[in-house]
Amino acid sequence: MKRLVVLGSTGSIGRQTLDIVRSFPDEFEVVGLAAGNNIELFNEQVKEFQPKHVCCIDPPTGAFPGMEFTAMEDMVCLENVDQVMVALMGSVGLIPTLNALKAGKSIALSNKEPIVMAGGLIKEFEKRYGGEVLPVDSEPSAIWQCLRGEDNEILRLLITASGGPFRTTPLEEMESVTPERALQHPTWTMGKKITIDSATLMNKAFEVIETHWLFSVPWERIEVVVHPQSTIHSMVEFADGSVKAQMGPPDMRLPIQYALFYPKRLPNSMIPRLDTSKPQSLSFDPMESGRFPCFELAVAAGKKGGTYPAALSAADEVAVQAFLDSKIGFTDIAKVIDQVLTEHESLPGDKAEDFLEADWWATGRATELAGG
Amino acid sequence: MKRLVVLGSTGSIGRQTLDIVRSFPDEFEVVGLAAGNNIELFNEQVKEFQPKHVCCIDPPTGAFPGMEFTAMEDMVCLENVDQVMVALMGSVGLIPTLNALKAGKSIALSNKEPIVMAGGLIKEFEKRYGGEVLPVDSEPSAIWQCLRGEDNEILRLLITASGGPFRTTPLEEMESVTPERALQHPTWTMGKKITIDSATLMNKAFEVIETHWLFSVPWERIEVVVHPQSTIHSMVEFADGSVKAQMGPPDMRLPIQYALFYPKRLPNSMIPRLDTSKPQSLSFDPMESGRFPCFELAVAAGKKGGTYPAALSAADEVAVQAFLDSKIGFTDIAKVIDQVLTEHESLPGDKAEDFLEADWWATGRATELAGG
Repeated sequence: MKRLVVLGSTGSIGRQTLDIVRSFPDEFEVVGLAAGNNIELFNEQVKEFQPKHVCCIDPPTGAFPGMEFTAMEDMVCLENVDQVMVALMGSVGLIPTLNALKAGKSIALSNKEPIVMAGGLIKEFEKRYGGEVLPVDSEPSAIWQCLRGEDNEILRLLITASGGPFRTTPLEEMESVTPERALQHPTWTMGKKITIDSATLMNKAFEVIETHWLFSVPWERIEVVVHPQSTIHSMVEFADGSVKAQMGPPDMRLPIQYALFYPKRLPNSMIPRLDTSKPQSLSFDPMESGRFPCFELAVAAGKKGGTYPAALSAADEVAVQAFLDSKIGFTDIAKVIDQVLTEHESLPGDKAEDFLEADWWATGRATELAGG
Repeated sequence: MKRLVVLGSTGSIGRQTLDIVRSFPDEFEVVGLAAGNNIELFNEQVKEFQPKHVCCIDPPTGAFPGMEFTAMEDMVCLENVDQVMVALMGSVGLIPTLNALKAGKSIALSNKEPIVMAGGLIKEFEKRYGGEVLPVDSEPSAIWQCLRGEDNEILRLLITASGGPFRTTPLEEMESVTPERALQHPTWTMGKKITIDSATLMNKAFEVIETHWLFSVPWERIEVVVHPQSTIHSMVEFADGSVKAQMGPPDMRLPIQYALFYPKRLPNSMIPRLDTSKPQSLSFDPMESGRFPCFELAVAAGKKGGTYPAALSAADEVAVQAFLDSKIGFTDIAKVIDQVLTEHESLPGDKAEDFLEADWWATGRATELAGG
């Protein structure tokens, strides 16, 4: 039985993680659950899974009798925890991730920001303390699956991108894009922040940074390929030119389950199967340069390293929220981020505090730039 | 250094095998070469690679001074041989394959017929004598690559088929198809026999039978998907619904090299790479039932087992040659095979002699049916 902590249990990935737990009741013990302020759903989850440890924002008095309130950064270190699902949003996942690594835990990492902010430090902690980071995101999971059993040189990681809702929108329309329109993702149903990040392709740049660190692949060997159907989740080209792809209908339960049971693959009727009974067509296009300024800014920040990626991630978090709140326009997202990165003075990035400081500074500066 | 024997060195796969040897001169010693009656090319190959052992039909007097003439079934058993590439055509590959297995050799098997005829016996010999059969054919190689590092249940093998030149030809035109037209394969350049087998989809049925034996997968879990671009060479669906695909431009040097160097993948500038700089589209269609009677006959014979697959393979060899010689029409190929299989009285198939006897009988009967 795997003893599991789920951080971010009421979010999209957290809920789907608990779907998997429900499908295999004999395989898991839920030791801890942590959520934000969706207290109603959290209450239901706690009742159902009876974790010993809970954590949430502003719990009602008398809630969760017999359970311990435990901060996330402590919950992940408990001795009776085998694996931690980090399904938080933004930089809040960094310290729990680092702590879990220090405690030698296996981490299913759905939350991209910790590894975007502090990929080098996370890899160093993995080596030093013996914990491990397993990807949950569908693209890095695809790459991880393709690399299984392969101890061969990687020529290219080919990360697929749906291209989001604005793949073919006339550029002059981009300025007036509304949050409602940007939230219509063509293939994936996800939380709001990541859906906007998918529309700007910031999310794809995060995956470039994430895969660079997760698989120790040089930047110039990571390529993004536009694949609107989101059926192939990513590909790896090996030294001999052979390309392996991982595919399936877009559904996050597969990569979640894969990280929870790795190296085992278990049948689960909830996970949709590739339908070969009908004709289908998969297309691939090179990424159009100039259409997605957030992507280019972000990859450049990733390559610069230091605390640039932390500043990037923080500025993006603020700018996306400002866009969702209709304080700034869609094309202003890139402008805010660009300005923050231009002004940012990088710290060395050899300790967690550097990243938190950059995060704090960039959050403040981006908030000013986005009109408070 | 790998000590290699190449059977069928002047055929398409044999020549490409020697291309790979040429690319890695320090990795191989060619111990033996065997060919049919393309004596001119064989002569050149022997001069270049200086094998100790040679075998061919009707060698000119005084040819190959200092070299030993060694029968194929003996050459594969020589003590100083590490690997045998069986790139022969038809049933002639069976005895060398079985002998090499008995001698515990690693066999790169390009020649489909031995495993189609006697898959059960080959697998039994593998277990009993410790040799191994490695696929060279692009589809089984793709499956083998996808299975790397996976010790998980297989839900489906999805074998891709280009559909050949007659995928969309009106059925009433099929009767009058000429050899010239049938030899125009849309994506692969191959020998004549296999090109006609690709037009009838007999070749695809052979791959169904081959993969059934190679990967011990039940018939009902093997599916053929029409994929006209031949970019995805095959796919595997695992227990959790995850599908892995192996892809690349259609070029046999990749699967040949993969079998020669497995588990290593080495860079080779001769092997073309997947081009992601241009838009491309991959399509998938279910196989149209009724269009390819050879496919259905052949899979049924595979399932029946015994010596039916050997009779199938022999009847096909005769019928295809009769078609190429304009003795019978394109649609007669299936009719000849059907009649041979209907009349065939299966032997148990627990020894090589059974398959050879079935092969001999079916060759004779098919020759009569195809007009002598």
